[in-house]
Amino acid sequence: MTSNNFPSGIDRRIFVSGLALLPALSSTVLSTLVQAQTAPGALASWNDGPAKQAILDFVRATTEQGSPKFVPLEDRIATFDQDGTLWVEHPIYSQVVYCLDRVPAVVEKNPKLRSVEPFKTVLSGNREAIAKLSLHDLEKILFATLTGMSVDDFEAEANKWLTSAKDGRWKRSYTELIYQPMLEVMQYLRGNGFKTYIVTGGGQDFVRVYSQQVYGVPPEQVVGTAAGTKFGYRKDGAPFLTKEPKLLLNDDNAGKPEGIHLMIGRRPYAAFGNSTGDRQMLEYTGAGNGARLMMLVLHDDAKREYAYGPAQGLPDTKVGTFTQALYDEAKKKGWPVISMKNDWKRIFAFEQTA
Amino acid sequence: MTSNNFPSGIDRRIFVSGLALLPALSSTVLSTLVQAQTAPGALASWNDGPAKQAILDFVRATTEQGSPKFVPLEDRIATFDQDGTLWVEHPIYSQVVYCLDRVPAVVEKNPKLRSVEPFKTVLSGNREAIAKLSLHDLEKILFATLTGMSVDDFEAEANKWLTSAKDGRWKRSYTELIYQPMLEVMQYLRGNGFKTYIVTGGGQDFVRVYSQQVYGVPPEQVVGTAAGTKFGYRKDGAPFLTKEPKLLLNDDNAGKPEGIHLMIGRRPYAAFGNSTGDRQMLEYTGAGNGARLMMLVLHDDAKREYAYGPAQGLPDTKVGTFTQALYDEAKKKGWPVISMKNDWKRIFAFEQTA
Repeated sequence: MTSNNFPSGIDRRIFVSGLALLPALSSTVLSTLVQAQTAPGALASWNDGPAKQAILDFVRATTEQGSPKFVPLEDRIATFDQDGTLWVEHPIYSQVVYCLDRVPAVVEKNPKLRSVEPFKTVLSGNREAIAKLSLHDLEKILFATLTGMSVDDFEAEANKWLTSAKDGRWKRSYTELIYQPMLEVMQYLRGNGFKTYIVTGGGQDFVRVYSQQVYGVPPEQVVGTAAGTKFGYRKDGAPFLTKEPKLLLNDDNAGKPEGIHLMIGRRPYAAFGNSTGDRQMLEYTGAGNGARLMMLVLHDDAKREYAYGPAQGLPDTKVGTFTQALYDEAKKKGWPVISMKNDWKRIFAFEQTA
Repeated sequence: MTSNNFPSGIDRRIFVSGLALLPALSSTVLSTLVQAQTAPGALASWNDGPAKQAILDFVRATTEQGSPKFVPLEDRIATFDQDGTLWVEHPIYSQVVYCLDRVPAVVEKNPKLRSVEPFKTVLSGNREAIAKLSLHDLEKILFATLTGMSVDDFEAEANKWLTSAKDGRWKRSYTELIYQPMLEVMQYLRGNGFKTYIVTGGGQDFVRVYSQQVYGVPPEQVVGTAAGTKFGYRKDGAPFLTKEPKLLLNDDNAGKPEGIHLMIGRRPYAAFGNSTGDRQMLEYTGAGNGARLMMLVLHDDAKREYAYGPAQGLPDTKVGTFTQALYDEAKKKGWPVISMKNDWKRIFAFEQTA
């Protein structure tokens, strides 16, 4: 799923040598080893333009030795929203599809739910009725399908679904519907010493199932909406954790900087989003000193993906809302807005390169 | 504060090259680059014996190419309790001293508290009365002194205290009272590709202030008892986070594996503790497949540090309780117990080497 944009050869390996494993070396020494990497092929799916330039300028300013805005290696943190920023969120969040797909199995275990709303509607298969379920109904479905099992059982179930489920439009796995240009940004930042985090309104445990394989982001670098777990023992004495229907972190809107503080403990230098749910994360990132990069993905490409806003007169589809007010704030604060139509040569890895 | 036990020279740096920064290289390739490091000088403050041998054996089993219990680089997670495992916890947790020291400043801001318990007792300076405060009183003091300010103000205050406060017995900074042998275990594990985490019942934000400098552990690798924060805006529009008196994670006992799942998302391969508060973390670690290392520090050295249990007939001092039941469980399950008296050549870095 990931693609390798680094130049081959041992020299690069020596260059960025042993950063995570040599805590005894001073960060100054390490920083000199990691200079801005403008490898040929970096950001290959990006058209030249202000968005690509903003990324290159930020990396140069924060990593080049002698730069007045140089950032020590250990402070290089970048956060990425997932839905609509790293992968497709239309017409419905993939994790919601997972939960809806899980309803029959949940009802089989607990038959009383068969005649109870909202489960009855989901089982009817009536797409229009399902689309009209309230947020409150959706929450009931999420808790019923995402909690009440061991964390190991959940991981196995989610894994199984991810390898078999296909989206309706491209007929591909959901994990193939990630944006190749954003994957390249993550790789480019990591190649320059940044730790990349996913900070998502989606379920933390869900995204952790595939984050390493799909994005190269280890589970511990996924911050998401999280329910509590409960430690207990099986009959044979083996300890295990059960997912509880108790919300610990609602990682959206103001919950994003709160989640970043809880899970990372410091302010990012770069943050990427695409909707009002990411506003506070970008504001919090931008409130730090020195060079900070805040970017928003605008879905303005109905042909290759989807077009929605309502910023810039694009249709308001209620999923991943990018308001005109957020657009205006971005312009006012100098946050580059990424036009999928104009800034990206290709959107998915499976497309032929232009 | 940290000492460098690695052999010098570029060869080692090449060996463990670029692990964090080259996600595009397969883990198999990377794993072959990181073989068990038995550098001369590793674990220098340990006497030869079963405890030291258990650490060496575990690292060999999990990192040597071809070992049936080889663990891929990205799965190498080790967790360490702090109080009593990494630094002195007697006669009173350092963070509690911090909170008591903060009481006058809190009362100055809110004079009504002056005549209210438990603040009145703390202000009296009567040590015996303070030592008798109930857990409930202590909680009131913790919430009053650790919440209600911005995360930046808290960090500045804690930093200031840490650089000036001295313990009563050694007359040294609390951050000097870390156990040199345990620091060497952390360095040795990191040198072999393990990510080291602190998993503490202490305050997450407190420990994060000094974790990098003292232990070489970055803030995001500190899991601790955590209160929520609240995102808001200052009068000038700048966003900031306020520490709220709302407990999110009580990271002790069963809360330790629960916190590990929340913050790391996978089971550790090694876990170190010293009291009943660490029992569930060690059990959870031990329930995984393959080679797992669970170790407990027994404080049996009244001369060089302190002696308390009540395991093995040592006095029960109520701080960092190591019960006989926990000792028996360790023996039954094969968890090596570290005798500070017998296994450690020296306890603190400031001691002369034997």
